[in-house]
Amino acid sequence: MIELDRDRFVDLLNEQSAIGETADGGLHRLALSADDRAARDWFREHLEDAGLEVRVDEFGNTFGRRAGTDPDASPVLLGSHLDSQPNGGIYDGALGVVAALEFVLTLNDRDVETTHPIEVVNWTNEEGSRFQPAMQGSGVWAGAHDLETEYEKTDADGATFREELERIGYRGDVPAEPREAYEAYLELHVEQGPKLEAAGSDVGVVTGIVGFTWGELTFVGDPDHSGPTPMDHRSDALVAAADTIQAVRRIGNSLGEETVGTVGSIDVSPNSVNIIPGEVTMTWGFRDPDDAVVQRAYEMVLAEANDAASREGVELESEETMRAESVDFADRCIEAVQSAADDLEYDSLQLGSGAGHDATHLASVTDTGMVFAVSEDGKSHSPAEYTSWEDCYAAANTLANAALDLARE
Amino acid sequence: MIELDRDRFVDLLNEQSAIGETADGGLHRLALSADDRAARDWFREHLEDAGLEVRVDEFGNTFGRRAGTDPDASPVLLGSHLDSQPNGGIYDGALGVVAALEFVLTLNDRDVETTHPIEVVNWTNEEGSRFQPAMQGSGVWAGAHDLETEYEKTDADGATFREELERIGYRGDVPAEPREAYEAYLELHVEQGPKLEAAGSDVGVVTGIVGFTWGELTFVGDPDHSGPTPMDHRSDALVAAADTIQAVRRIGNSLGEETVGTVGSIDVSPNSVNIIPGEVTMTWGFRDPDDAVVQRAYEMVLAEANDAASREGVELESEETMRAESVDFADRCIEAVQSAADDLEYDSLQLGSGAGHDATHLASVTDTGMVFAVSEDGKSHSPAEYTSWEDCYAAANTLANAALDLARE
Repeated sequence: MIELDRDRFVDLLNEQSAIGETADGGLHRLALSADDRAARDWFREHLEDAGLEVRVDEFGNTFGRRAGTDPDASPVLLGSHLDSQPNGGIYDGALGVVAALEFVLTLNDRDVETTHPIEVVNWTNEEGSRFQPAMQGSGVWAGAHDLETEYEKTDADGATFREELERIGYRGDVPAEPREAYEAYLELHVEQGPKLEAAGSDVGVVTGIVGFTWGELTFVGDPDHSGPTPMDHRSDALVAAADTIQAVRRIGNSLGEETVGTVGSIDVSPNSVNIIPGEVTMTWGFRDPDDAVVQRAYEMVLAEANDAASREGVELESEETMRAESVDFADRCIEAVQSAADDLEYDSLQLGSGAGHDATHLASVTDTGMVFAVSEDGKSHSPAEYTSWEDCYAAANTLANAALDLARE
Repeated sequence: MIELDRDRFVDLLNEQSAIGETADGGLHRLALSADDRAARDWFREHLEDAGLEVRVDEFGNTFGRRAGTDPDASPVLLGSHLDSQPNGGIYDGALGVVAALEFVLTLNDRDVETTHPIEVVNWTNEEGSRFQPAMQGSGVWAGAHDLETEYEKTDADGATFREELERIGYRGDVPAEPREAYEAYLELHVEQGPKLEAAGSDVGVVTGIVGFTWGELTFVGDPDHSGPTPMDHRSDALVAAADTIQAVRRIGNSLGEETVGTVGSIDVSPNSVNIIPGEVTMTWGFRDPDDAVVQRAYEMVLAEANDAASREGVELESEETMRAESVDFADRCIEAVQSAADDLEYDSLQLGSGAGHDATHLASVTDTGMVFAVSEDGKSHSPAEYTSWEDCYAAANTLANAALDLARE
C-alpha cells in the first residue's frame, strides 16, 4: 500500500487551479484556449521532470509513460481532463489528472516498480463547451469519432478545432488511437452530486455510468393576441410545453429508483407578454443505469408530448438528439477500487455515475473503473464546486492503490 | 342615414396600406419612422383637400375639424391610429382613421351639415412597439401621462421620442390636451378576436374595454448538473414555473365567463440541456370586464406561484407590472352605434373589447364608444390580419351613422 504526498498533491492542485482562475474562485480554461495551452505545458513539464516518456497524439491527448518491469505487459492508464467549463470549478477533471501525476511521483519517491507500465493522460476537450461533443478527445482515441470530422468542428466564432489545436502547438504526430492493448483504465473524478456527502462517505467506488436519452420538442400553435382571444379559441404552444415539463418530472420521479429527468432549456416565440405563444422549443433528458428504463422514459415523454399537443390543438415536431447506452465497469476494476478504499479504512459507497466521463469511451477499449471524490453540496460546473483537500486526498489515495494493485498483477 | 362611398373608401385603404407595406402583405410603419411621417403627410393632405381645419399638437396627434352649425357646440371626435406593429396588418388602427376620413368626405359630398363640429384624429403611437407605453399619444392628450416624461422615452437605439417627433416634423405647437369639452368620441377598430365571425355578425357594438392585470415572476433555484443530481435533491425553477403556467390556464378557464389568462413569455437560465434550471422569469396576464374578477385572478396567480415555489423549494420574486381598470362605454354611444347598425340592417353583436385602444383614454375625457369590424379568424398583429372590404364598409357605415346621430343632437 502507498500513501501519496499530501502537501505536494495540494501544491499541484493549487498550481493548476491558478491557470485560468476567475475572480470568484472558479476556472475558465476552455479547450484549446491560451489557458488550456498553459495547463498542458504545466502538465507536460511535470511529466518530463518525473522522467516519464511523453507523447502527444494528433488530437492533443497527452500521455506520460513510466516503464514496467515486464516489457510485454500492457499499461495501466490513469487520467482525466484539464479543460474546464466556461465558469467551472477547479476540481472537475483536474483532480483526476493531478491525482494520476501525484501517483507516479510517489512511485518514483519510493522506487516502486510495477510489472505493467503506468501511463497518465490528459484527454482533450472533455467538457464539450467550446467544441462539441463532450468527451471529444477520448472519443476520437477510442474510435467513437472520426478524427477528420472532429478536426472540422467549429466553435461559436467559426474557428476550426484543427486550427486551434495547431495554434496552441498540441497537434502531435502520434496517431490518436491505442497503439497496444491496455490492462485497465482508472479515472478519479468529483461526484458532481450529493450522494457521497449525504451518506457520510470518504470516497465513492463507481460501478458504471448511466444510460442517457436526450431530445428536443417543438410545439407550434397560434400566436394570437392574448386580450381578444377567448380561452376556448387558443392553440397555446407554451401550455402544451408546460404539461410536458410536468410529465418529465413525473417520469423522473416514478419510473426507476435511479431515474432522473430534466427539462433544461426552453425557447418561446414571440415571447411577448400579450401574445399567446406560437412556437415553443424545449429539450428533455433522462438518465438511468438500466437501458430498458431509458428506452421506456423516451417512449413515455413522446407519448405525453403528443397527448399535450393534441389536447391543446398544436402541432408537434420531436427529435431524439442523443442516446448513450449505460456502461458497466469491469468487476476487477470495481474490486480494485473497493479493496483500496477498504485497506485505507475509508468509508466508501458504491454508486453509479450520473454524468458522462472520458471513462465512458475507455470502457470500450479496456477494463475501466472510476473513483469519486466527495462533492460538497453536490455542486459542479460553477465556482461553488468544492471538495475538501482531505476528501481529494482520500480519493487520490484510493485511486493510487487501486492502480498499483492492477499494475502489479 | 348616409352611406359612404365604397370605392373611394377602398381606394383610401389601399393608399395607406402601401405606405410601409411588407412583401407578405403586412405593414411595417413604426411610430415616428419615415413611413409614419409619410402616412401622416398622406392623412394631412386629405384633411386639407377636404377643407378641414388641420392642427398638429405637441405630441404629433393630428386633428382635422369640420365646422358645425352651432359655434358653441362641442365636437364629436372620431379616429384611431396610423402607426403599426413591427410586422402587423393593414387594418389595425388604419381602418378607423380611414373610416373617419371617409365619413367627412361623404358629408362634404352630400352637403350635410351637423350641429356639432366633427373632428377626425390620428393618435400618435398607439402600438407602443417602438416607444412605450401603448396608447401613448391619446394618453398624453387625456392627461394620463406627462408630456415631458414621454418626450424623454427612448427607443431600442436610444433615440428620444422628442428628437424623433421633431425629425419627422410633427411636433406641433398646439398643446396636447383637450381645448374644449367634447361631445363624444367614437372609434372604429378591427375586433382582433374571433367572436364576430363565429356569430356570423356583420359588425360589433362595443360595450367597453376589459380590465387588465399583468405581472412578472422570477423563480430562483439551483442550477445543478442534471445527471448526478437525484430527483429528490432538486430545486428546479422551471418546474415551479410550469406549475404556474398551468395555474394561469386554469384561472383563465374557470374564473369568469369572459376571463382570459396568458403566459406570453418565459426566460430560463442557464437554459442548457443538461443543467437544472436555476432561474426562470415569466410574465402572466389576466383580463376580464369585471375589475373584481381581475383582482381575484391576481390574488390567485400569486397564491399558486407561492405554492409552486414552496413545493419545489425555490425562491420567488413577484411584481405586478400593470393594472388597468375596465372601461364601460357611455350608454348613449353604445345606443348610437347599435341604432346605426339596426338602421343599416346589419347583423350585430354587442361585445367587450379584450384589447386596449385609444378609446381607453378618451373615456376619461368624454362619452366614448367603439365599433368593431369582423376579424377573419381573429388574427391580428401579423400580415394574416384580414377584414373583407365588405366587413370594413359595414363597420365604417355604422361608425358614420352613429357619429352623424351624435353630431346632430
